[in-house]
Amino acid sequence: MGMKAEVKVQAQATGAAVPGSQAERFLAIRRMTRSLAAPLSSEDCAIQSMPDASPVKWHLAHTTWFFETFVLAAHLPGYQAFDPSFRVLFNSYYHSVGERHPRLERGMLTRPDLAQVLAYRAQVEQAMLDLLGGAPSSPLPPELAAIVELGLHHEQQHQELILTDVKHLLSRNPLKPAYQDKWPLTPIHASARRWLGFAEGLHQIGHAGRDFCFDNETPRHRVWLDAFELASHPVTHGDFIEFIEDGGYRRPELWLSAGWDAVAARGWQAPLYWTQQDGRWMVFTLHGEVPVDPHTPICHVSFYEAEAFARWAGARLPTEAEWEVAVQLNANPAADLTSQSTTQATTIRGNFLESGALHPLALREAPADGMLAQAFGDVWEWTRSDYSPYPGFRCAPGAVGEYNGKFMSGQYVLRGGSCATPASHIRASYRNFFPADARWQFSGLRLARDAG
Amino acid sequence: MGMKAEVKVQAQATGAAVPGSQAERFLAIRRMTRSLAAPLSSEDCAIQSMPDASPVKWHLAHTTWFFETFVLAAHLPGYQAFDPSFRVLFNSYYHSVGERHPRLERGMLTRPDLAQVLAYRAQVEQAMLDLLGGAPSSPLPPELAAIVELGLHHEQQHQELILTDVKHLLSRNPLKPAYQDKWPLTPIHASARRWLGFAEGLHQIGHAGRDFCFDNETPRHRVWLDAFELASHPVTHGDFIEFIEDGGYRRPELWLSAGWDAVAARGWQAPLYWTQQDGRWMVFTLHGEVPVDPHTPICHVSFYEAEAFARWAGARLPTEAEWEVAVQLNANPAADLTSQSTTQATTIRGNFLESGALHPLALREAPADGMLAQAFGDVWEWTRSDYSPYPGFRCAPGAVGEYNGKFMSGQYVLRGGSCATPASHIRASYRNFFPADARWQFSGLRLARDAG
Amino acid sequence: MGMKAEVKVQAQATGAAVPGSQAERFLAIRRMTRSLAAPLSSEDCAIQSMPDASPVKWHLAHTTWFFETFVLAAHLPGYQAFDPSFRVLFNSYYHSVGERHPRLERGMLTRPDLAQVLAYRAQVEQAMLDLLGGAPSSPLPPELAAIVELGLHHEQQHQELILTDVKHLLSRNPLKPAYQDKWPLTPIHASARRWLGFAEGLHQIGHAGRDFCFDNETPRHRVWLDAFELASHPVTHGDFIEFIEDGGYRRPELWLSAGWDAVAARGWQAPLYWTQQDGRWMVFTLHGEVPVDPHTPICHVSFYEAEAFARWAGARLPTEAEWEVAVQLNANPAADLTSQSTTQATTIRGNFLESGALHPLALREAPADGMLAQAFGDVWEWTRSDYSPYPGFRCAPGAVGEYNGKFMSGQYVLRGGSCATPASHIRASYRNFFPADARWQFSGLRLARDAG
Amino acid sequence: MGMKAEVKVQAQATGAAVPGSQAERFLAIRRMTRSLAAPLSSEDCAIQSMPDASPVKWHLAHTTWFFETFVLAAHLPGYQAFDPSFRVLFNSYYHSVGERHPRLERGMLTRPDLAQVLAYRAQVEQAMLDLLGGAPSSPLPPELAAIVELGLHHEQQHQELILTDVKHLLSRNPLKPAYQDKWPLTPIHASARRWLGFAEGLHQIGHAGRDFCFDNETPRHRVWLDAFELASHPVTHGDFIEFIEDGGYRRPELWLSAGWDAVAARGWQAPLYWTQQDGRWMVFTLHGEVPVDPHTPICHVSFYEAEAFARWAGARLPTEAEWEVAVQLNANPAADLTSQSTTQATTIRGNFLESGALHPLALREAPADGMLAQAFGDVWEWTRSDYSPYPGFRCAPGAVGEYNGKFMSGQYVLRGGSCATPASHIRASYRNFFPADARWQFSGLRLARDAG
Repeated sequence: MGMKAEVKVQAQATGAAVPGSQAERFLAIRRMTRSLAAPLSSEDCAIQSMPDASPVKWHLAHTTWFFETFVLAAHLPGYQAFDPSFRVLFNSYYHSVGERHPRLERGMLTRPDLAQVLAYRAQVEQAMLDLLGGAPSSPLPPELAAIVELGLHHEQQHQELILTDVKHLLSRNPLKPAYQDKWPLTPIHASARRWLGFAEGLHQIGHAGRDFCFDNETPRHRVWLDAFELASHPVTHGDFIEFIEDGGYRRPELWLSAGWDAVAARGWQAPLYWTQQDGRWMVFTLHGEVPVDPHTPICHVSFYEAEAFARWAGARLPTEAEWEVAVQLNANPAADLTSQSTTQATTIRGNFLESGALHPLALREAPADGMLAQAFGDVWEWTRSDYSPYPGFRCAPGAVGEYNGKFMSGQYVLRGGSCATPASHIRASYRNFFPADARWQFSGLRLARDAG
Repeated sequence: MGMKAEVKVQAQATGAAVPGSQAERFLAIRRMTRSLAAPLSSEDCAIQSMPDASPVKWHLAHTTWFFETFVLAAHLPGYQAFDPSFRVLFNSYYHSVGERHPRLERGMLTRPDLAQVLAYRAQVEQAMLDLLGGAPSSPLPPELAAIVELGLHHEQQHQELILTDVKHLLSRNPLKPAYQDKWPLTPIHASARRWLGFAEGLHQIGHAGRDFCFDNETPRHRVWLDAFELASHPVTHGDFIEFIEDGGYRRPELWLSAGWDAVAARGWQAPLYWTQQDGRWMVFTLHGEVPVDPHTPICHVSFYEAEAFARWAGARLPTEAEWEVAVQLNANPAADLTSQSTTQATTIRGNFLESGALHPLALREAPADGMLAQAFGDVWEWTRSDYSPYPGFRCAPGAVGEYNGKFMSGQYVLRGGSCATPASHIRASYRNFFPADARWQFSGLRLARDAG
Repeated sequence: MGMKAEVKVQAQATGAAVPGSQAERFLAIRRMTRSLAAPLSSEDCAIQSMPDASPVKWHLAHTTWFFETFVLAAHLPGYQAFDPSFRVLFNSYYHSVGERHPRLERGMLTRPDLAQVLAYRAQVEQAMLDLLGGAPSSPLPPELAAIVELGLHHEQQHQELILTDVKHLLSRNPLKPAYQDKWPLTPIHASARRWLGFAEGLHQIGHAGRDFCFDNETPRHRVWLDAFELASHPVTHGDFIEFIEDGGYRRPELWLSAGWDAVAARGWQAPLYWTQQDGRWMVFTLHGEVPVDPHTPICHVSFYEAEAFARWAGARLPTEAEWEVAVQLNANPAADLTSQSTTQATTIRGNFLESGALHPLALREAPADGMLAQAFGDVWEWTRSDYSPYPGFRCAPGAVGEYNGKFMSGQYVLRGGSCATPASHIRASYRNFFPADARWQFSGLRLARDAG
Repeated sequence: MGMKAEVKVQAQATGAAVPGSQAERFLAIRRMTRSLAAPLSSEDCAIQSMPDASPVKWHLAHTTWFFETFVLAAHLPGYQAFDPSFRVLFNSYYHSVGERHPRLERGMLTRPDLAQVLAYRAQVEQAMLDLLGGAPSSPLPPELAAIVELGLHHEQQHQELILTDVKHLLSRNPLKPAYQDKWPLTPIHASARRWLGFAEGLHQIGHAGRDFCFDNETPRHRVWLDAFELASHPVTHGDFIEFIEDGGYRRPELWLSAGWDAVAARGWQAPLYWTQQDGRWMVFTLHGEVPVDPHTPICHVSFYEAEAFARWAGARLPTEAEWEVAVQLNANPAADLTSQSTTQATTIRGNFLESGALHPLALREAPADGMLAQAFGDVWEWTRSDYSPYPGFRCAPGAVGEYNGKFMSGQYVLRGGSCATPASHIRASYRNFFPADARWQFSGLRLARDAG
């Protein structure tokens, strides 16, 4: 089974360490996006399978719109828009930019067709390269470089959404078509889990240093933490089967009230994409429908399910501060987290998009004594923290200020990236966020508890 | 503008008069269906724009499913299904045939893609030709010929739905793309309307003779009608503008209570597809968005709007019996409608699908003194009759008995066919039916009133 | 069990035969309304249990509003409104009268309280008596007498709604409180059912003569009927149990498509108010929850259930014309229904409101050979006819023209009155109407079939 | 206007300082509840005006159910339930206690009527007094005393809900009835607002000491705060008019994304209960509809509106930790909040339920230099903190563990109590919580900002 070699965990990168000039990185990221759509027909790219998801074609166009609107139109003299109507058609949610095609109508757009959207991408890419590569000796003005950088990270976010959204779409088809077929993935003997302890103290979290980050990761700030413990590994599919078999979805005392309402209203009996066939749990993946592998991190659970599982297990979810503090120690065990000058981890390893697995891989040995295993990649980890502004947070000025801040209510923070996240996109301070009932992301959990 | 020649009203056919063998007609009708999808991309064919509509790809597959399920599987020994999963995937509403893919999920099927569906069509067509043409000297068994005939008429119904559904889909796109571009259509000087009188009497309606009809047109039966009058021509777009300008959509006293509720709940201010730009009414057509032509029959109005317009005009909608009696006299002024043996009209002229106009054409001169103009083609005409079984009606036995009878509640009858109806599909006794709030068909009206 | 004497079927009256002057009838009808609310607390009278229903207090006030608005304000010089705000508060649906308190908000009105509404009734009654009885020697102007008469019949309609609405409200209470306690009702040995035949012909239906009727019963008009048969008695609760036990609610082939959708969407498994306890069917009545009596006419079924039952029984629902023709013959076997001058039945017997049973009574012997049993009273009988205007129908002029005509879409006709209908309210030509899914009225059915 | 004297701010109490034995306090609190229903008719008490609200009768019964279920049934040998069906009927959300009557159906219960519920209250009160006062010399077992104490605080919570729920009900009536009529309230010259500064540091929040508190206020724990500033007074109605006039409800850039969705979906143009009449803002109060008084603290705004207002004002909402730290200093300026042993404030003054105003009173002079004015009473103050468990939080064991913990998602914390809160009910550590779109509580805000 020669393909297994491709699937092995090989991603190893950091945002800072992405090699090459901004122009080179621009090209590499754009090509990655394009390659994600390669296995899909124009029909696969056109349809919106639920309000939360968008058509792949829309992702392809919207990420291009970002560069055209915020970079080319603003900074490239004489640039002619590919099609003026796209300014409205592919605006996601920027009120400052003007009208937007309604989110729920994204799946109605058969025109422009996929070929036109790819042509749109090509024109914008050429213009961007003209802009970025025109004078290699003269660096871009900082403001321009910053918005280009934001566009690149923005595009990486949509790479993950392309995969989660097309997975949802394909799952709605009773034929259960596969996005790719690399199944089975490399079998790995699962490692045992254990509790890791962290002492109380006044720590710092939030982005440090000069590398790119989103505004919501700032400012770096002090936070007091009581002593706590985290599990060395994420919760697995096998753990979740135990929860189900113990009546997890039928016992209201395990659930938050709103979670129990969701269970009742939607008839949840298992994580998203699970079905039971002849007493055996199957799960729809980007490789089609396969048997549940008990040794892999659980994913496609909502915050509510993660929270109920933790209660059932006699534990709790970590706060985002606990998670980030632990991960910083992970990267640098000797770090003094009480100091403002501490920089972030420099090496992030994990099962990311680039591994090609597109599914969480089995528990692997912890990297070193006392360090978290699989904190990055595999699955996003729900935290108990609602998505809210850090002390001293300021939205970025202008339209890009709409990027993050306005979503800071009614959502919970997830950390660490997943098997669909580009390796160079994630950071210890990265804050992902989704509503408590969202299940279509690669979202799982790691247990926490108060120290002794 | 050379294209005008193509658009002129040229359709002239009857169901009985369709030339050729059943095999030839099969091929001709199948090709027509295929040609309707020709201007569309695979994306255009994949999307479901509202619960009432289906993707074009689904229409292409479902009409094929009908022949595979009811003809080939039942009557062609050794026939191998193209794909067994299609039996469920493209079953519309036949409980007797087993499971059905949910109607609301038709737009989720990116697989099979359009190419596969066209291959499905090709295989079924070849098998059907083998069956139909195998032994030209030996005619098909009557039962088999009947189900093939039903399949052909079924396919013609879906031809019209392909056009109305894709029109709705394209209208949802802010770019307002055209299905075809033959605008402007032939200008015709509109004729004056007048009232035509019909005497009271005991008449007969319903299908007579041996030609094909749907079960809902049977049995032919007696019906008493008081004297009545019908307008010589349909109501026009210009008439409707007057209604609007007279506050038609703001005056509850003009509406049925349920109609007024619909106006309020949906914010209706004009027929479907109308928008006002700089004080001028525009309408979305299969030729894109064009100015409203006041001389053409109104279409895309609901039963409620038709009924309110009639009240505003001091008139009413005809019953389906009034309409059918008048049209029978149209075809044969000397007919004795009290006799069971009267056969149906033999020549039906009108602006049908084959004209290529795909839009109602302006009022034309009445065919002869005292006869209805444009009773067939242009627009379906709402009647005041709910869709219910005729006295003595019996559903066809077996699965095809689900074709019509089970829909006989909560809908109203429309008569006469439209510019999207195949010419050979329509009959004087033909009963189309839609809910009172449906607007996406080419549905208009003709006024009636009590005599004297 | 002394109460049985009160319950025996004793109602015997016609609209024409109601004794006394209009003033006397006014008082009698108003007292009956008041007596229906007597067993209820002010809380029982205040609550709206579903959008279709209204609080009893609202019925008490609205029927009073009718007289104040259409009679006193218009015809009694110097009349001072009890409270000007009531003009809006208790207007049901008369656009011509101005604003209306929204129907869905009727249950929000704790003020005016019940005592105030009763005071409102008292003032209006006194003023009405002043108007009606002022000069017994000089008759009222015809127009005034007509609107008073309409008000009386209007109030009788609301008497029935008070009972059906309060029944629904009480059924929502898990304590299952009784409106009254007269259970068990008189046991009667059920009669056998048989088919009664009616010959084809040109008949007349609709109101004849000068007695009061609603505008929707006019004009009397000719209608052709093929020969048909009707069951001598209504379908019973026992019949319906057979239907249920034969899988009636689980077999789509028995149902209209819209009916099957309703079964699925609402989880219907039996008529309204039925529950199964230890394998035994119980039903909530105005006497509390009691065992289902198989010999009594079924009630609280929707049009869809009635239609499906008929199909299951190998029969169909009658049209309203069939029903009315049969009932006219019932009243007067020698009647010539082809004549315009035929007057309506003069004696209507049945289990009406006045019997005090407030529940259908068991099948009773047919009145005479070839006549329908229990056509009047017990349960309203669903017909296969949609509620639409008769040929030549004209709405009454003015605000009262909103009484009936605007509801003529999307509903089906029921005939014959029920155990909650005042005896003097019903007629052979009376057309009641409800949507196809309504179940909270005392609605049942009688089977029909085509002759020979 | 002699009533003004009654309305002046006179409440002055603390939970600790409530005088008398537990039996005496039990009686006092129960009488207060009863007195709140005194101005209401049985109809006023029966109706549920929206899903969030409950009928007053239900509040009267449910608070009684609490004592019967958790105290009498468990601790009084031989106690006979008033009515066994009430165990289900008046269970709010305790899964551990068994079935519950559905929340949305609370308004359907006309039986038991108000008189029966009052009799229920009387029986339970007598039994409670027997239990509590039986042996004054022998104190209650601690576990029993604790659950009684919880029941008292639970009842106080429902006192506030009785007022907010009946206010909502009365507001739905177009007659705008008043609950009481003490308008106008005492005019007070408004004080000027200023910013108060608080230094950074490691503080403690959460309940300290042995007095009663809810489990959600525990454990007292350390929290780091950067330096911040709070406004001396709450935001006023006048401030909000400025916000409205500056386009506050029409400018998406001022709103959280979910807040802007709420504005659009619900058509918010002002706080709840506001209407504009002839260009003047009116507001519905428990005194009926009155002109908006610009000098009073704003109330009936959602979290979204509070958050948008703060952004418009160039400020932000405080976190709950900021609020509590400031208020602790308020009570005891010399407090060392870094010490575990610090006890809570002992004197809480404000415009509470007992003032009789039932509406916020105008801004009053700050109590002392550097202290917050009106932190307690008048209006609940929205914070930027989601309602989540404190570090180390443990749910209480048993059924009462369902009291708080399971609601810890999707809600925001409010602090300080309102004009409808009993004075003895509130504490510095008290955490109220509601969804971000709730507006029917007396909810307002106080501005915060980062220091320097």
